[in-house]
Amino acid sequence: LSAKRHLMTPGPTPVPPEVLAAMALPVVHHRSPDFKPVYARCLERLKDVFRTENDVLLYTGSGTGGLESVVANLCSPGDRIVVVSAGYFGERWAAIAETYGCAVEHIRYEWGEDPSPDDLASRLAEIGGAGAVLVTQSETSTGVVTDVRALAAAAKAAGALVGIDAISSLGAVPCETDEWQLDAVVSGSQKALMTPPGLSMVSVSSAAWEAQARASLPRFYFDWERTRAAQEALDAAFTPAVSIVVGLDVALGLILERGLEAAFEHHVRLGRACRAGVKAMGLELFSPDEDSSAVVTTVRVPEPVDGAQFLLDLRDRLGITLAPGQGPLKGKVFRIGHIGYFDVFDITTALAGIELSLAEAGAEIERGVAVTRALETYERTPA
Amino acid sequence: LSAKRHLMTPGPTPVPPEVLAAMALPVVHHRSPDFKPVYARCLERLKDVFRTENDVLLYTGSGTGGLESVVANLCSPGDRIVVVSAGYFGERWAAIAETYGCAVEHIRYEWGEDPSPDDLASRLAEIGGAGAVLVTQSETSTGVVTDVRALAAAAKAAGALVGIDAISSLGAVPCETDEWQLDAVVSGSQKALMTPPGLSMVSVSSAAWEAQARASLPRFYFDWERTRAAQEALDAAFTPAVSIVVGLDVALGLILERGLEAAFEHHVRLGRACRAGVKAMGLELFSPDEDSSAVVTTVRVPEPVDGAQFLLDLRDRLGITLAPGQGPLKGKVFRIGHIGYFDVFDITTALAGIELSLAEAGAEIERGVAVTRALETYERTPA
Repeated sequence: LSAKRHLMTPGPTPVPPEVLAAMALPVVHHRSPDFKPVYARCLERLKDVFRTENDVLLYTGSGTGGLESVVANLCSPGDRIVVVSAGYFGERWAAIAETYGCAVEHIRYEWGEDPSPDDLASRLAEIGGAGAVLVTQSETSTGVVTDVRALAAAAKAAGALVGIDAISSLGAVPCETDEWQLDAVVSGSQKALMTPPGLSMVSVSSAAWEAQARASLPRFYFDWERTRAAQEALDAAFTPAVSIVVGLDVALGLILERGLEAAFEHHVRLGRACRAGVKAMGLELFSPDEDSSAVVTTVRVPEPVDGAQFLLDLRDRLGITLAPGQGPLKGKVFRIGHIGYFDVFDITTALAGIELSLAEAGAEIERGVAVTRALETYERTPA
Repeated sequence: LSAKRHLMTPGPTPVPPEVLAAMALPVVHHRSPDFKPVYARCLERLKDVFRTENDVLLYTGSGTGGLESVVANLCSPGDRIVVVSAGYFGERWAAIAETYGCAVEHIRYEWGEDPSPDDLASRLAEIGGAGAVLVTQSETSTGVVTDVRALAAAAKAAGALVGIDAISSLGAVPCETDEWQLDAVVSGSQKALMTPPGLSMVSVSSAAWEAQARASLPRFYFDWERTRAAQEALDAAFTPAVSIVVGLDVALGLILERGLEAAFEHHVRLGRACRAGVKAMGLELFSPDEDSSAVVTTVRVPEPVDGAQFLLDLRDRLGITLAPGQGPLKGKVFRIGHIGYFDVFDITTALAGIELSLAEAGAEIERGVAVTRALETYERTPA
C-alpha cells in the first residue's frame, strides 16, 4: 500500500528534517571553533531541558551507557542499592547494579504496575536505608509513567541518592531535576529529543558529585569527572559523535523555542487522542488511561489476532512500524510511541492502519470511529 | 581568504557526500527490516576490512570505549598486562588498564620513538609473561606506525594475548587481524573509515573469547558476549547509532569496491607526497620518512614561528584545520592527517596553506616548490 515509512516506536523516533539537514553538513573537528559554540549551546540547552543548574554530561553511547555510568560513578562493591522496577527497563537497572557487585534490593512489580512511593518508603525503613535508589520514570515496555517526584521524596527522606532513567520521558513529561532533588537523571537523544540515537546525557547533583569522589567502582570512558573537566574547558574527553551533537543542538532549539511546557501539553494531548481512538475501536488499553500516559500507548492484542503477524502486516504492507510487547508481554500487547516529532495526524495514521489490519485479521472492532474520535479529543483538550 | 573548510586532522576526517546523504535519510528502527540488512552487511564488511573471520563487535561510542572493552573483557583485577607506549594513545591504554586495577608493566618510549619487538620479547621473558600485551598501531600523536606484526609475534611467543589500537590505522595501512593472530583489534568510524565519529568496532579472536569467559572485571554496556549474542540474532544489544551505521555501511562499500590493497597503496602515496612537499619547503619531519608513515605527517614548527598562532592563522584565515602537537610535543610540531577521504589535491592544499602562513610568520622556507614536488611524487609512485 505504501512505500512511505511511518516510524511510531518509542525510540528511535522520527527526526525533523531540519535536524537531518544539519547532520548532513560536512563534519567539523570537535576541537575547532566550528564545533565549540555548538557544543556549548547544546550543553546549555540540555540544562534547560533537564531543568537543572547542575552539570549535564554528554556521552557518545546508547542510553544504557548513561545508566551504567550512574552505577559505576555512585557505587562501591557491596553498596546497598534499591532498584524499583515494573518492566524491562527497570530490570536493566537491576542487571547493571548486580553486574557491578552492588547489594541490590529489588522492589519488583508486575509489568504494567505503577510503583508505589509508600512501598519504597517502607522497604527503605526495613533495610535501614540505601546508598541509592534507582527508578525508571517512563517504563517504555509497559507505557506506565511513574510518579518520580513522590518516589524521589521517599528516597531522599531515607537519605538515599536518586538515579532516574528518563530516557524515553525527558522532554515529553515533566522531569524537574532540581526541584525534585534528582541526583542523576539519564536521557538519550533518540526519544522525545527528536535526534538520531547515539548520545546519552546524565545530570549530576552536588550530592552525587560527593558520592562520586568516594565511589570505587572502575570506570574510564563513563567516568563523570573526566567528562565534567573536559566539558568545562568546552572540550570533550573523547571524540564525540559530532554530527549527532550538531543535530541535537538543532532539535533542542526547536523544543525550547516552543517551550517545554508546550511540549508537555502536546504530549498529554497526543496521548489522550491515541487512547480515545483505541477505545473507540473497542480495544483494551494496557497502559493507564491517564494523562501521565503521554509517552507510549500500550494496547492488548484482541482475539483472534496473532500479535506478531499483525505487527508484520502493519509494517510490511502499510509502512507503519509499531513496537511489540517485550518479556512477559510478548505477543499480548502492541505499543504506539508518540514522543518527539509527532502530531495528531501521526496518531490518526497509526489508528487507521491498526483498524484496517485488525479488522482484516478477524478482530471484532468498531470501524470508522477511531480517527474522528482521536481528532475530536485532541481538539477538545487545548492548553 | 576562504569560507570553505578543509579538515585535515587525523580524525574526524572528511566524510564523502554519499555517506552524508545516506545519513540524512529518515531514521529507521534498529529492529526493522529497513535496518537489519544494512546492519548485516555492515558487520560482514567490517570483517573484510579487519581481515578476519572472527566476530567484529560494533559499539556506539568513541574509540576509547572500544579500548576499554578490551581491558574489561580480557582481565581480572591484578592481572599482569604489558602496555607498549610511545605517545598519547599508548598512554591511554595504560591509564585504562591501571584504572581497572591491572598490574601494568609499562614499556614506555619517548614520544616519537618506534617500539621495538626485541624490547617487548626481553621484557616478557624478564617478567615471566603476561596476560595481554596492548599496542598502538598508529600513534596518532606522533605519526609513527609501528610494526604490529612483529610486536604481536613477540607477544604470542610468550603466550600473551594481543590487543591492538588500530583506531587511526585500520583501512589506511595493513592490519591483518587473523594472519598476524591479533586477539582484539579496536577501530573507530571517524578515521580511515570515512564516517562521522560515534562507532567503535572490536574484533575478538577465539583465544580472546576463552579469556573473556574467565575475566572477572565488571562490564555491562561494553560486555562482548552480550553484544556478540545480539549481533548473531541481527539485533543490537542496545539502540545503536542507526544513522552512523547507515553511513558506515556506505563508506565501507566505497572502500571495499576499490579494494583494501588500493586503499593502502593510496595512503602510502599520499604520505610520500606530503613528506616530499614538506621537505621541499625545507621543513623538518618529526614522523619517520618511511612508507609506513601513511596516516599522519608530523612536522616540526620552524623558528621563529609560534606553533599555536600558526595553526589558528591556518584555520581562521585560510580555512585549513590541522592538528597541534599533544603532550610534550605541544607547540613543537603540527600534524597533517591524510587518512580516508583524501586525494593528492587535499595534500597540495595543505602544503600551499602551510607555505603561505609560515612564510608570513617569518620562517625561512623555500617558496613555490612544495606543491609541485608533492604532485610529482604522487605521480611517480604508482601501484
